[in-house]
Amino acid sequence: MSGNVLGKRFVVVSFGESHGRCVGVVVDGCPAGLPFDERDVQKYLDLRRPGTSRYYTSRLEPDEVDILSGVFNGYTTGAPIAMVVWNRDVDSDHYSEYHRRPRPGHADYVARVKYDGFNDWRGGGRFSGRITLSHVMAGSLAIKLLEYVLSVKICAYTKRIGDVEVDKITYEKLERRYSNPLRCPDPVIAKKMEEVLNSVMASGDSIGGVVEVVILNVPVGIGEPVFDGLEQDLSKALFSIPGVKGVEFGAGFESSKMRGSEFNDRLVVRGSTVRYESNNMGGIVGGLSNGMPIIVRVAFRPPSSISIPQKTVDLETLKEVDITVRGRHDPCIVPRAVPVVEATVAIVLADHATRYGLIPPVLSKEYGKFKRRDS
Amino acid sequence: MSGNVLGKRFVVVSFGESHGRCVGVVVDGCPAGLPFDERDVQKYLDLRRPGTSRYYTSRLEPDEVDILSGVFNGYTTGAPIAMVVWNRDVDSDHYSEYHRRPRPGHADYVARVKYDGFNDWRGGGRFSGRITLSHVMAGSLAIKLLEYVLSVKICAYTKRIGDVEVDKITYEKLERRYSNPLRCPDPVIAKKMEEVLNSVMASGDSIGGVVEVVILNVPVGIGEPVFDGLEQDLSKALFSIPGVKGVEFGAGFESSKMRGSEFNDRLVVRGSTVRYESNNMGGIVGGLSNGMPIIVRVAFRPPSSISIPQKTVDLETLKEVDITVRGRHDPCIVPRAVPVVEATVAIVLADHATRYGLIPPVLSKEYGKFKRRDS
Amino acid sequence: MSGNVLGKRFVVVSFGESHGRCVGVVVDGCPAGLPFDERDVQKYLDLRRPGTSRYYTSRLEPDEVDILSGVFNGYTTGAPIAMVVWNRDVDSDHYSEYHRRPRPGHADYVARVKYDGFNDWRGGGRFSGRITLSHVMAGSLAIKLLEYVLSVKICAYTKRIGDVEVDKITYEKLERRYSNPLRCPDPVIAKKMEEVLNSVMASGDSIGGVVEVVILNVPVGIGEPVFDGLEQDLSKALFSIPGVKGVEFGAGFESSKMRGSEFNDRLVVRGSTVRYESNNMGGIVGGLSNGMPIIVRVAFRPPSSISIPQKTVDLETLKEVDITVRGRHDPCIVPRAVPVVEATVAIVLADHATRYGLIPPVLSKEYGKFKRRDS
Amino acid sequence: MSGNVLGKRFVVVSFGESHGRCVGVVVDGCPAGLPFDERDVQKYLDLRRPGTSRYYTSRLEPDEVDILSGVFNGYTTGAPIAMVVWNRDVDSDHYSEYHRRPRPGHADYVARVKYDGFNDWRGGGRFSGRITLSHVMAGSLAIKLLEYVLSVKICAYTKRIGDVEVDKITYEKLERRYSNPLRCPDPVIAKKMEEVLNSVMASGDSIGGVVEVVILNVPVGIGEPVFDGLEQDLSKALFSIPGVKGVEFGAGFESSKMRGSEFNDRLVVRGSTVRYESNNMGGIVGGLSNGMPIIVRVAFRPPSSISIPQKTVDLETLKEVDITVRGRHDPCIVPRAVPVVEATVAIVLADHATRYGLIPPVLSKEYGKFKRRDS
Repeated sequence: MSGNVLGKRFVVVSFGESHGRCVGVVVDGCPAGLPFDERDVQKYLDLRRPGTSRYYTSRLEPDEVDILSGVFNGYTTGAPIAMVVWNRDVDSDHYSEYHRRPRPGHADYVARVKYDGFNDWRGGGRFSGRITLSHVMAGSLAIKLLEYVLSVKICAYTKRIGDVEVDKITYEKLERRYSNPLRCPDPVIAKKMEEVLNSVMASGDSIGGVVEVVILNVPVGIGEPVFDGLEQDLSKALFSIPGVKGVEFGAGFESSKMRGSEFNDRLVVRGSTVRYESNNMGGIVGGLSNGMPIIVRVAFRPPSSISIPQKTVDLETLKEVDITVRGRHDPCIVPRAVPVVEATVAIVLADHATRYGLIPPVLSKEYGKFKRRDS
Repeated sequence: MSGNVLGKRFVVVSFGESHGRCVGVVVDGCPAGLPFDERDVQKYLDLRRPGTSRYYTSRLEPDEVDILSGVFNGYTTGAPIAMVVWNRDVDSDHYSEYHRRPRPGHADYVARVKYDGFNDWRGGGRFSGRITLSHVMAGSLAIKLLEYVLSVKICAYTKRIGDVEVDKITYEKLERRYSNPLRCPDPVIAKKMEEVLNSVMASGDSIGGVVEVVILNVPVGIGEPVFDGLEQDLSKALFSIPGVKGVEFGAGFESSKMRGSEFNDRLVVRGSTVRYESNNMGGIVGGLSNGMPIIVRVAFRPPSSISIPQKTVDLETLKEVDITVRGRHDPCIVPRAVPVVEATVAIVLADHATRYGLIPPVLSKEYGKFKRRDS
Repeated sequence: MSGNVLGKRFVVVSFGESHGRCVGVVVDGCPAGLPFDERDVQKYLDLRRPGTSRYYTSRLEPDEVDILSGVFNGYTTGAPIAMVVWNRDVDSDHYSEYHRRPRPGHADYVARVKYDGFNDWRGGGRFSGRITLSHVMAGSLAIKLLEYVLSVKICAYTKRIGDVEVDKITYEKLERRYSNPLRCPDPVIAKKMEEVLNSVMASGDSIGGVVEVVILNVPVGIGEPVFDGLEQDLSKALFSIPGVKGVEFGAGFESSKMRGSEFNDRLVVRGSTVRYESNNMGGIVGGLSNGMPIIVRVAFRPPSSISIPQKTVDLETLKEVDITVRGRHDPCIVPRAVPVVEATVAIVLADHATRYGLIPPVLSKEYGKFKRRDS
Repeated sequence: MSGNVLGKRFVVVSFGESHGRCVGVVVDGCPAGLPFDERDVQKYLDLRRPGTSRYYTSRLEPDEVDILSGVFNGYTTGAPIAMVVWNRDVDSDHYSEYHRRPRPGHADYVARVKYDGFNDWRGGGRFSGRITLSHVMAGSLAIKLLEYVLSVKICAYTKRIGDVEVDKITYEKLERRYSNPLRCPDPVIAKKMEEVLNSVMASGDSIGGVVEVVILNVPVGIGEPVFDGLEQDLSKALFSIPGVKGVEFGAGFESSKMRGSEFNDRLVVRGSTVRYESNNMGGIVGGLSNGMPIIVRVAFRPPSSISIPQKTVDLETLKEVDITVRGRHDPCIVPRAVPVVEATVAIVLADHATRYGLIPPVLSKEYGKFKRRDS
């Protein structure tokens, strides 16, 4: 019980259900004095919004944020910030069937067992991808905070869909990651990904993919060993996004095939600062940021909902039956997951930057000056 | 700061340094009434102990556990259990050099920056693999508890070293995973792994690998969404083991290439219980255990210490220099990491089983009877 | 920062401001299967509501609860339960003056310093007594849970206003504690208290008092030493109610004048159970409930807002000035604090009963039967 | 379960038993760079040590601290600091009797019930006053930290024993609070207290008292509303000291008899700073420090152990019997509690000062300079 609280200083509390009144979040621990309003959130909600591309689920939700507390006169107050998105386009028709005949790949069965049937099963309830609205609302605040205080920049993008993969990426390209609905910064690869998606959709199937995150301007030393290192807390948060089955940093699983002489990032002097010659570590060593870009890859399995009939069990008769999942769903969750991953990563970094003393409890009105004096 | 506490109910606190007085751990939240003494810990410490194979570091440590509190008359008391391993074979000769000239791959540089040089850099201090003694001590208690109350069985093994990989594994084979120093249950593959290690050692290099964990008899419904699901907390704990760069569950990164029709585990009836036909989910869906074996794979990068000269920076002169890392180190950390991974996984499961109410606060002397009555 | 989360298992998160959109709360960790709806909350909100007696502030707030999540088909689902009360009768006219010229007794000055003026100062913002709506909403859920599962009964009442004090109280009388607006179960004393209040109000002043809580049917052994004992966590929660300046258990401060031979509660046998002959301990020893009624007394200082002119400082000119606090306020907070104290105590007990394993994660539909079988 | 962890940033973990191997503590979250060694701890342990006055228990314990980790070259490293006091003079002879026939006033009975008899009952185990060695060890570190960074000064003293009370106290007198074994800064009153103790001891009885704490130089704004205010967290920590039955701040329980016009501390200008004319608030308003001295009073009940025969229950026969408590005990715990209260208060303040950003994660070697520049 009580698993809906994340973080120690920039504390995020998620609530709400897919087909309930709303999905919401409370952030406790954001410093006072950050300029913040609905627009800062809405721009990320819009990036995640369904129905804006033929490759996204057709559920028509405006997904407008409603800030309930913690903001006054355009600034955060230091009090907890509660935000909700009210659900509008709810269609719970088929879900009582799925409660009885669990959809393969979904959490219908385990949720029913765990909560002895009391769970709100409409639309998957707490297990719906819609819950990531919490991540996005809290994360958009974290993104603003990190940018304002530390100039941290978080760029996720669609690295792979099925077998189609972006090989090399430049930071310039990353700026254009939202220029197509696939969130793939390479337009040639994006085209190929569309082909894959078209074929998948034609067959009523779904497909997985990989999101890569590149985080720039992270100061050295963020992360608290041994249990609250950056890899530890980033992976924990990322696995809370429905559909994630793997997380790796830097060379990741490939590093398990490498030799030390090949893997070790050598230290070098660039200008007057210490840098690394390569980045197999993915910007994190010993759980601490090392000043290099942080590189994380997140593997998403294919969405569970497909329109092909599948075998399952009728939990009342305990007989095997066939089920066809109706309703609206994404053929691949990766494109819409891109802003969710950015938001989730930001939550963890905001928490850790605060723990490490890099973000003060109040950003006074002369914060710009203060920043200059300090550096 | 304060990142050395893990868990919410079965709470683990790590302390100690590689070349300090000891490495220790406090477990707060273990139920009263569990039969427990030094032997339960020692057997796991022995599996992790250096110097017992030519493929392990030659540091000669008896690694004997000393239980300081929380156990009385052979049973846990419900009070916090403190345990330490006193360091014996400490050789800090070269470390002041590494503090000045950080070893590539190690945390020497980031630790120095983060703590402004105050960190205990001898032997890597808190960033040494030796810190996993904490994991093993606490984990051996968790293993005992899980077995005693829930008959949970945790089996990790060396899945891969470099390119040599175990393909298929049966649960019978898993029982023999500790029969060779490589902790590879397949003797033919183990032989090949030895060849790889021999060649790596001959060149003064190191190599990475993968540990796979199979967890049996986990009841349905363990894990607390949305942030404290099982994947979330297992990955967090596993990334606290030095050298881990990736964690995946079930089909993992492979699932990102799959279609939903292929990936989805269908529900079936076996006897009178609901099971899944396949296990691409790796026993976890929506962050909850689903009754199938939990399958986790952990990617280890090659150990940082190699005897080949490497480039680094002298932090006092800010000049690039060559460094040769002396001292005793493992050519591949995977075999000795196997018991560490088992212990780490157990800590998380013990925490979650308690949170989910499956482990009562006291195991009364008639616990055997109670268990029977309840099931 | 981030001080708005209370508890470890029945976790309460408070948000909202006195003159903002709403005051709200999220409860994470309530078991699934508890029958619960708006009426369970409303009855406690009504007991706390302003404007229902001439002795209460005249702010006219309907204070209706709005449950946003976590309840489905009349039962809790195991998901976080978010509840809000929307603010209606907001009058922020004078507060910009108080932000500049802090009201003595209020947190205006310290809040301004702490948050560098970014705090929402309207109506006192987060420091208003109105914030206890969070306590009451979460607490009404806790009260229901404790009664449903453990038959715990929590009775607070007005023990003293100024010098007028209830001497002896029987549990029968406690049942009638809400029969008058003073929440004093003794009608003769209640009359005298009214006289005190009338005189205080006539002079534009305010007055303090004491709430006593009696908690019945608490099983032996609740509380987690050494830091999370019942006295520890009850006092922490009670001091979060604005205006509390002292908390004592059993004989409390009087016990500091007593001898051991007089204070020690002797153990006796009553029927077939062990009881105590007296209750100087107030039902808690070593931080653990001992099976006797838990007795807590909470001292409230007089409300800060009085209509008599007072000296303060103009923070912009740094000159001393006189201020007259306008607006609507209670002459004594104690009567309206009575349900708040009950709710607050319930939150702590629900958290601890869950931690001690007395409240299962799901209250199955046959919970009544289960309860019988178990006892 | 798991109630032995206190704090969020300066995290204290207590372990050990009265008659076990040791009593110990881990502090996780102390900044790196604080000069610290055994002497800093020993001086507080010596103040708490038994056997150094005829008014203290005669258990002969050297109570020498052993620092196990987290300190290197005379400075804290930023890693967890583990400290233990090894038990030497253990005499568990009579305790098996008390386990069966619980001593009135002690936790023997409730502990046995809670842990179903598995608890280490020797010497009271975890419920012994000896557990406050943890508080003193961690607290001595906190005291050093607060003094070093913020010049905070914490002075507790014996305010009252039985009916003999110190009326007025000056801060100069407070400096001499350890000049007599009663820890009463007024020598005339101290004499009278001795008389009370002599008479109590002569009759084999015990007596209660009050400790008052005065905390100087606390900056404005420490404390995190609404649940983690200073009163909230100070009271929680203070109630973890065995024998405490009441905690009050400033005017405390007396404030419940006062009128607002009398109680409210007026703001005034002194020099160029805002101060309060009086200190009925005890230095805390709205849970935040207000810049005035923090005043806390802690009521201690009489020690439970008296040599007068008392009634109790034989838990094996369920018959009432008489018991005479043998062994060594304090006639009044207050004098030896004085350093414990100081240490406990320091832990909370160190935690909160860190949370509020007043204590940086590293105290660099030029910290003195940095401090000057900053102020």
